Amino acid sequence: MIIIGELINGTRKHVKEAIASRDEEYIAALAVKEAEAGADFIDCNPGTIGEQESKDMQWLVETIQAATDKPISFDSPNPEAIQRGLATYSGEAMPMINSVTLEPGSVEKMLPIVLEAKVNVVALALGEGGMPTQAGQREQVAQQIIDRLVAGGIEPEQIFVDPIIAPLSTATEVGQHIFQAIAAVRDYCPECHITCGLSNISFGLPNRRLLNRGFLSLAMQAGMDSAVMDPLDEKLMAQIIATQALLGEDEFCMNYLQAYRAGKLDV
Amino acid sequence: MIIIGELINGTRKHVKEAIASRDEEYIAALAVKEAEAGADFIDCNPGTIGEQESKDMQWLVETIQAATDKPISFDSPNPEAIQRGLATYSGEAMPMINSVTLEPGSVEKMLPIVLEAKVNVVALALGEGGMPTQAGQREQVAQQIIDRLVAGGIEPEQIFVDPIIAPLSTATEVGQHIFQAIAAVRDYCPECHITCGLSNISFGLPNRRLLNRGFLSLAMQAGMDSAVMDPLDEKLMAQIIATQALLGEDEFCMNYLQAYRAGKLDV
Repeated sequence: MIIIGELINGTRKHVKEAIASRDEEYIAALAVKEAEAGADFIDCNPGTIGEQESKDMQWLVETIQAATDKPISFDSPNPEAIQRGLATYSGEAMPMINSVTLEPGSVEKMLPIVLEAKVNVVALALGEGGMPTQAGQREQVAQQIIDRLVAGGIEPEQIFVDPIIAPLSTATEVGQHIFQAIAAVRDYCPECHITCGLSNISFGLPNRRLLNRGFLSLAMQAGMDSAVMDPLDEKLMAQIIATQALLGEDEFCMNYLQAYRAGKLDV
Repeated sequence: MIIIGELINGTRKHVKEAIASRDEEYIAALAVKEAEAGADFIDCNPGTIGEQESKDMQWLVETIQAATDKPISFDSPNPEAIQRGLATYSGEAMPMINSVTLEPGSVEKMLPIVLEAKVNVVALALGEGGMPTQAGQREQVAQQIIDRLVAGGIEPEQIFVDPIIAPLSTATEVGQHIFQAIAAVRDYCPECHITCGLSNISFGLPNRRLLNRGFLSLAMQAGMDSAVMDPLDEKLMAQIIATQALLGEDEFCMNYLQAYRAGKLDV
């Protein structure tokens, strides 16, 4: 599993305040905690708009880089903010852009950036029709984005398809649609990664982390190999380790046993 | 999910003692607890041998029946003990026999009992070659037993296929083999039930309940609709409820929300 730590997000109250007050210590500590907990990427979402977002992105990237070597995922709907993030980034590991969609102009704007900087890119299964509501829509849009990105020169290994996790509270069959989409994308592009904004699934329902954990296992079985998630959620991390063992991805359960000895499963 | 409560099993120390000392109160309390926690069947496994097992089965069935109306699963390798259990049973709901296999003589002995008593039957995917070790073996044996039982006059709805849960500690790919077998059996016989001895998966590994929970979700996604399990494991029960919602089996998450209000998800 490729874990994209979601905690540095300006829509979260304390992070918003830390960004506004330029509280380096708070942001740096969060980045270190995510990295130590097992994040492979540190998501960086200023949550502001316009020129302010670019400034905030630059400050966040400088602050995160001073704290950890983990690559950053530049998470913004604003190409300028993403470019400012990329220009500020000096890490060795290939960073990530979140995201490109099938909405008009998105691929055209983002493709040159992805090609020039040679970065990973989240391909969000959002078409001109907006949020998917029918079975089959997610995979259809995802395949079109994959085709356009690959035709534009992007390697499949750089693409992280996000099938869009709608809240289960909005429709009973949301989970089924997503698992089918994941399986279809895995089949269509075996070299692509598949990620998601995990906690969206439980929005509007109680005991969200219980649903998040269950969803993650089921999505992994369908073929998902990444998630934008909270790496400090110890139960979720334990669930990933158990699921990998159950899916045959952990030879002789070595990783599971190592996590047990490190006290990571007693949660 | 059709839950078969596993706690009244003579291989468990306290149950063994309660059977030996004819401690009605202990066994009755266990049966009531399982029923109240959500068990659909009460498994009844004396764990003794020969004529003693038949006597123990009779006493257990009398004791369980006096405590709960839930149907009983007569769990024994001994046809005489099962017949004694059936003769003692006076409940209205269709009970269960655990189990029939493809081992020589098993179907021949059990089929007349199943037909006469009109009971559910666990079909264990055990062939003449013993425990399955290769991919594809479980479903092959399961399909043969289904064919023989159906040809013998058993309704598919009465058959609970058990694909045999070998411990994950014995081979990295055990989980994959089982999930593939479940999916194949579900495809081969949509009306059959698929069950399993859940906790076998984690035998020999630490933090067993974490693996049991993860396995259950993944097996449900593959098509399993029953398990022989501990209904008093509150985290496991919560995982079932969450998984059903995620798999689209809980319209508008009504059951999930009801369980939440009943405090069953705070585990």
